[in-house]
Amino acid sequence: MSDTRTIASSIGALTDALMADYRQGRAIDRIEPYSQPDREVITDLIGRMKRLLFPGYFRDLEHRSYDIRHSLAVLMEDIAFRLGEQIAIALRLGASVDADRARLLDAQAQELTVQFLSRLPEVRALLQTDLEAFFDGDPAATSPDEIIIAYPGIFAIMVSRVAHLLFELEVPLIPRIMTEHAHSRTGIDIHPGATIGRYFFIDHGTGIVIGETTVIGEHVKLYQGVTLGALSTRGGQSLRGKRRHPTIQDRVTIYSGASVLGGDTIIGHDAVIGGNAFITASVAPGMRVSVKNQELEMRPGRQSW
Amino acid sequence: MSDTRTIASSIGALTDALMADYRQGRAIDRIEPYSQPDREVITDLIGRMKRLLFPGYFRDLEHRSYDIRHSLAVLMEDIAFRLGEQIAIALRLGASVDADRARLLDAQAQELTVQFLSRLPEVRALLQTDLEAFFDGDPAATSPDEIIIAYPGIFAIMVSRVAHLLFELEVPLIPRIMTEHAHSRTGIDIHPGATIGRYFFIDHGTGIVIGETTVIGEHVKLYQGVTLGALSTRGGQSLRGKRRHPTIQDRVTIYSGASVLGGDTIIGHDAVIGGNAFITASVAPGMRVSVKNQELEMRPGRQSW
Amino acid sequence: MSDTRTIASSIGALTDALMADYRQGRAIDRIEPYSQPDREVITDLIGRMKRLLFPGYFRDLEHRSYDIRHSLAVLMEDIAFRLGEQIAIALRLGASVDADRARLLDAQAQELTVQFLSRLPEVRALLQTDLEAFFDGDPAATSPDEIIIAYPGIFAIMVSRVAHLLFELEVPLIPRIMTEHAHSRTGIDIHPGATIGRYFFIDHGTGIVIGETTVIGEHVKLYQGVTLGALSTRGGQSLRGKRRHPTIQDRVTIYSGASVLGGDTIIGHDAVIGGNAFITASVAPGMRVSVKNQELEMRPGRQSW
Repeated sequence: MSDTRTIASSIGALTDALMADYRQGRAIDRIEPYSQPDREVITDLIGRMKRLLFPGYFRDLEHRSYDIRHSLAVLMEDIAFRLGEQIAIALRLGASVDADRARLLDAQAQELTVQFLSRLPEVRALLQTDLEAFFDGDPAATSPDEIIIAYPGIFAIMVSRVAHLLFELEVPLIPRIMTEHAHSRTGIDIHPGATIGRYFFIDHGTGIVIGETTVIGEHVKLYQGVTLGALSTRGGQSLRGKRRHPTIQDRVTIYSGASVLGGDTIIGHDAVIGGNAFITASVAPGMRVSVKNQELEMRPGRQSW
Repeated sequence: MSDTRTIASSIGALTDALMADYRQGRAIDRIEPYSQPDREVITDLIGRMKRLLFPGYFRDLEHRSYDIRHSLAVLMEDIAFRLGEQIAIALRLGASVDADRARLLDAQAQELTVQFLSRLPEVRALLQTDLEAFFDGDPAATSPDEIIIAYPGIFAIMVSRVAHLLFELEVPLIPRIMTEHAHSRTGIDIHPGATIGRYFFIDHGTGIVIGETTVIGEHVKLYQGVTLGALSTRGGQSLRGKRRHPTIQDRVTIYSGASVLGGDTIIGHDAVIGGNAFITASVAPGMRVSVKNQELEMRPGRQSW
Repeated sequence: MSDTRTIASSIGALTDALMADYRQGRAIDRIEPYSQPDREVITDLIGRMKRLLFPGYFRDLEHRSYDIRHSLAVLMEDIAFRLGEQIAIALRLGASVDADRARLLDAQAQELTVQFLSRLPEVRALLQTDLEAFFDGDPAATSPDEIIIAYPGIFAIMVSRVAHLLFELEVPLIPRIMTEHAHSRTGIDIHPGATIGRYFFIDHGTGIVIGETTVIGEHVKLYQGVTLGALSTRGGQSLRGKRRHPTIQDRVTIYSGASVLGGDTIIGHDAVIGGNAFITASVAPGMRVSVKNQELEMRPGRQSW
């Protein structure tokens, strides 16, 4: 400790060292002239969209009907301009953009935003079916209010349905930022590319993974720790865009900890997959699949485990 | 892109479309005259309660003793009024309330708040036992400080004990909002209805699910990914209030990824349940249960997985 | 409800009851004269460090080069002083500190801060390899930008590498607060003591646990729900500092839900561990280990599950 350095005397040298480190030209060193989409703005947008999608449950709309229209218009305008801005940033990413191209992309961002917002009633129609599936499926649910206010599953599904719509509109990056926000809050990781039918129910949810090319039918129930994944990703980038994740048909239930893997795997309608099952081949409609008598060893004991 | 719409010109039509969508009378369309409990306020209350429950570990109480009493009274008053307000809102939910009834519910909310706060020493006595169990159980813990400041398990248990007290006082909705906040922060999903004895230890914790009617004894240890769940929820709302989750007796340890399911399932005192075991029947006291030689296939190889 | 108490009339008595409760001398009652490290400050520091480590991806550096140096120096200074302050607090914990000792610890905190910051280029060199491993390993990744902005795995690894450096410098408590913040945000629980080689890839990540004495080689891939843990922690505090967690050699892949346990367990280079495998003994280099034909029972059925 004889030649102790102080913070004040070291800042200059530390800064220069890092500046030198930034000049190595690696991916990590990229200093972009254009902005990146902003996670905080997008997270905030999700909160505002939740108020649009579930209008009855949020305090800002505690008004009479004509006040509601005004509040709603303000909220809508606010969402539209922020989202439009983020989409414009996302569209410019990774390309050099001259002034003409920038104007074109801005117009495109506005058009995509309007298309997205005009389709919110579709999203709400789906969420109404999900809400019914949650209430019908969970004996611990005391009211639809409780589900909307407190259940992580409905939040993850809401974000996933919104993100999937943006994904279909081919908006880059923003859908994934949205679903990763939901993943962070809920432990439920649904890729925005996944296609999910009506009446979707997720219970508890922590650890669920639903891959990019998964297709899920109607009235499907998933419990915590379920993976709908790829058989292998050894192929890496060469697999981009290929079908890698399973098809889950209508009225399938998959209990906790089960994995269903592979792009050719189809779980037929009305099948039930038991807890911890590891499925890499198709299952016929109506089958009940369970792990057969997991062999358990029982011994009395004080010995260390 | 020839008839590109701009955001500014579209807001009116988008708002009207959504207003029309809200008028369909579905559960998702409810526009309540009364407020809902506010997640942000309740989350903030949890942070303030943590300062009451673990007084030595938070900066606001770095004062001499007479200053502490003053700071504490301010904190207590703040918590009491906010919590009382949220309880009053929760009590009004889903009922039409005239002025007389509103006064009665407000008085009841104040009484419940006082009852709750007067029982915090009970909660602190339980948390002291949990803290000891954490320190004794985890060789990576360097001090009780580290556990209180950093460990997600102790946070989840704190919230669960507070929420369970409100659940016992029959406060609607708020207990579940509290435990879902802890679930979101820690990945540990403990329903406020679960009954949990002294000296409870949760290690790592991500993916743990403890259902509404679970009963847990003293000196119980749970590791990450453990489910204490229902055998089936096919019965849906018809199962409401029925015993669906297991009983875990004193000094039981359940290792990571194990599931114990069913309302008739009792894990006897001093039993140990091994990693990934799937248990749907009772286990006698003192037994060690482990998955028997999971058959593993080993092959050398470069082949794709 | 005849003797309903109001909040206003009860605050005094509630405060006194809690003050009396604090005087019991238990661990939970400690009212420290010195501050504790502050989780919020440390969380905020992680956000600022992310901007240092990935300079191209954050809006504050959207400037020309000479502006960048200035912005960077301001950011560096800000991080240095806050971190130095938190380290000084952590060094004082649990000891009585006179004025001379306090000066010595402050100087030591400054020296440790400077050492830490001067080694950030090493951390960035590691993160560049991780970024390559993520992009090469995941067909759903469309660009390195998407990984840095949205992927929880890269965030958890970044925090883990930063925390490990502070752990090596023997800074108390702060490394664990950092990794538990990442655990909370991502569900990925990496103890700051774990040693992790270059090109580390974590996919999805929720539920991953990597214990304190784990050693991981280069080009290792882990999927969601993998535990690299201890065989038993029955020994509790007596095991502190002992090797309890496995060694994972170069180019090993471990698929979702697998557990590898024990301080003597070595997974040899180029091995692949299949989903849900439960491994408590060493595996030779190059082996593929999979759970052998999990016996599944299939039956058609309408019966309740």
